[in-house]
Amino acid sequence: MKVLVLNCGSSSIKYQLIETEKKLKLAKGIVERIGMAGAVLSQKRFDGDNLKIAGEILDHTMAIEYVLSVLLSKTHGVISFKEEIEAVGHRVVHGGETFSDSILITDDVINVLRDNIELAPLHNPPNIKGIQAVKRILPDVPQCAVFDTAFHSNMPHKAFLYGLPYDLYKRYKIRRYGFHGTSHWYVSNKAAELMGKNFFDLKIITAHLGNGCSMAAIKDGKSIDTTMGFTPLEGLLMGTRCGDIDPSIITFLMSKEGLTLFEANTLLNKHSGLMGVSGVSSDMREILSALEDNDKKAKFAFDIFCYRIKKYLGAYSAAMGGLDAFVFTGGIGENSSKVRNEVCSDLEFLGIEIDIQKNNSQSEIISADSSKVKVFCLPTNEELVIATDTEKIVSGIKK
Amino acid sequence: MKVLVLNCGSSSIKYQLIETEKKLKLAKGIVERIGMAGAVLSQKRFDGDNLKIAGEILDHTMAIEYVLSVLLSKTHGVISFKEEIEAVGHRVVHGGETFSDSILITDDVINVLRDNIELAPLHNPPNIKGIQAVKRILPDVPQCAVFDTAFHSNMPHKAFLYGLPYDLYKRYKIRRYGFHGTSHWYVSNKAAELMGKNFFDLKIITAHLGNGCSMAAIKDGKSIDTTMGFTPLEGLLMGTRCGDIDPSIITFLMSKEGLTLFEANTLLNKHSGLMGVSGVSSDMREILSALEDNDKKAKFAFDIFCYRIKKYLGAYSAAMGGLDAFVFTGGIGENSSKVRNEVCSDLEFLGIEIDIQKNNSQSEIISADSSKVKVFCLPTNEELVIATDTEKIVSGIKK
Repeated sequence: MKVLVLNCGSSSIKYQLIETEKKLKLAKGIVERIGMAGAVLSQKRFDGDNLKIAGEILDHTMAIEYVLSVLLSKTHGVISFKEEIEAVGHRVVHGGETFSDSILITDDVINVLRDNIELAPLHNPPNIKGIQAVKRILPDVPQCAVFDTAFHSNMPHKAFLYGLPYDLYKRYKIRRYGFHGTSHWYVSNKAAELMGKNFFDLKIITAHLGNGCSMAAIKDGKSIDTTMGFTPLEGLLMGTRCGDIDPSIITFLMSKEGLTLFEANTLLNKHSGLMGVSGVSSDMREILSALEDNDKKAKFAFDIFCYRIKKYLGAYSAAMGGLDAFVFTGGIGENSSKVRNEVCSDLEFLGIEIDIQKNNSQSEIISADSSKVKVFCLPTNEELVIATDTEKIVSGIKK
Repeated sequence: MKVLVLNCGSSSIKYQLIETEKKLKLAKGIVERIGMAGAVLSQKRFDGDNLKIAGEILDHTMAIEYVLSVLLSKTHGVISFKEEIEAVGHRVVHGGETFSDSILITDDVINVLRDNIELAPLHNPPNIKGIQAVKRILPDVPQCAVFDTAFHSNMPHKAFLYGLPYDLYKRYKIRRYGFHGTSHWYVSNKAAELMGKNFFDLKIITAHLGNGCSMAAIKDGKSIDTTMGFTPLEGLLMGTRCGDIDPSIITFLMSKEGLTLFEANTLLNKHSGLMGVSGVSSDMREILSALEDNDKKAKFAFDIFCYRIKKYLGAYSAAMGGLDAFVFTGGIGENSSKVRNEVCSDLEFLGIEIDIQKNNSQSEIISADSSKVKVFCLPTNEELVIATDTEKIVSGIKK
């Protein structure tokens, strides 16, 4: 089945057309600057054909029409009729407490997504826009939603409740949700497969380290804890997000600097993290090259980044009562041997031993043969999970 | 040397008169409701003599005068002349970045304490009041300050810096300070002594669990990380404090409920924690008895409380690259075998095995003989440390 996978942001749409049986990515692209001057569609086809077109793209509907015309194009396309697209799968950030699994999109589902907007004010609205656009353009094609929160939806109370008045959980649904669920699920499954072991018998920790970063503790196939919380701000140090801080700092800073709520959020989400600490960049590659020049603050940023991961690795091992596998994924996780090496250093007591050579050569498995805990470096593939889930739901295999 | 140890709060003063050579607590008391109606002084003498007197106590000076008169009293006192008090030691909450050790109080020191007021607006002002009062009443007696933050003052950057713009650290000194340092130092030392090992060769985690709760990672005799941060709000679940939360929750709640900065702080500091989650009490003893009645929310509070400690135990083991000893102290740590048992359950992979019987009988050492990590349950004694440090400084042994 050919499934169009969409990840709709406020001014961009990422897409992939995936042939699910063969797990083949036919085309992958992005529309950027939707509703702004200088909108661009870039696409890479399975055979290496590259396309970049500029144009005026007013809204999500127009953007998806562009995508379809490119997929159908004689010279750069991959399908001959739009009917070849049998289903559309959407990455939806926030499923709230309602959705614990991927689901066929109906009007009722859209209404619940609307109800969850205040939990994900930046993410759910464009997701809904994308769904509505597809409904207009491909009215007969079934659409599915695959949630970033779903894999974490069965965490125990002790992991998802905050130490706040219980009433606030009931009234506003303030709790830990966790994100990157599709990625954590995919790479932890993959690790079990590579170990030749049953996913449901293992204790696995996954670290998705991209621009957003999160870790998950996966015991017997279930996410039992994760670092991102009510929003994607909590936990690890990220490109521009602060992660864990003393909650008092926020009111202290608001008072000192006379910040509004919006400004405080912007500070913590956009000007903190690797960028804020280093003053150099939100990009780990630039932090690493500043390290070469002995930049003191870049070193602090790198050290904090790795130290937090190391601490959560210990915390989640304790939460699960042990550890069988540890997986790095995401842009930084897959590409920085220096980060992986620093995180895993001095953890022999946990049964973690890195093979320096394997780590440097970016092998799938980077732990030493003698390492009790298997350490992996695996590319994630959220789009494939979305396509596969969508195919299963549409074929009636998954309910 | 007889040292008067003072812990001055905004409306209370706790005191002990300690004979440092014999480590003898001659008398221990508290003045409560200073400046309010119904002020009370209660004292317990070394020989069991108990005293409780009510009176009008307008300020800290008057309170300390009361304390002296009781210590000198023919029937309930322990000294004959006030000159027997050779030094006064103050517990001071916040030493900021300036004080990394206990110090003789001079006018310069008082000025720095004043500079640090905004870091500890609730705590440093009454500490200063207490110091000024003693200066008036016992002008010739040297006074020393022993800081709650001092033991943590050598944490590495990666542990004390937050993921915020570096400039905010420089401008406002926003960083992790950590508290309960005197207690963490005392019980970790004691554990090393009981193990017959050198304090400076060990990896120890201490959990001070009282109304405020914090943990520390102590490697080679130094605190390298601790759960409380810029203020005593961060980290573990406490009686009424929330500990770690997603920073976004604060701005979300302020917006939803129209809270002022002060109200937001009050919510997180006074209405959260065990109290907020359970709706039952901020007191672990009452939570434990509600558990007996199968109270669902008391169970959540208990579970979150223990789970956080367990996660930090793992995190700090990873931070130190292993673990030799784990110490429980503070009211809850010393008295709740159920908490200790839950925290230490299922941690055999870390080398932790509790001896149920020893745990129930509140032994000093509660781990099984076969346990690689020694687990202790030790009463803390911050006042003795304050008296000893004061005596050393006043005798010129310590600079």
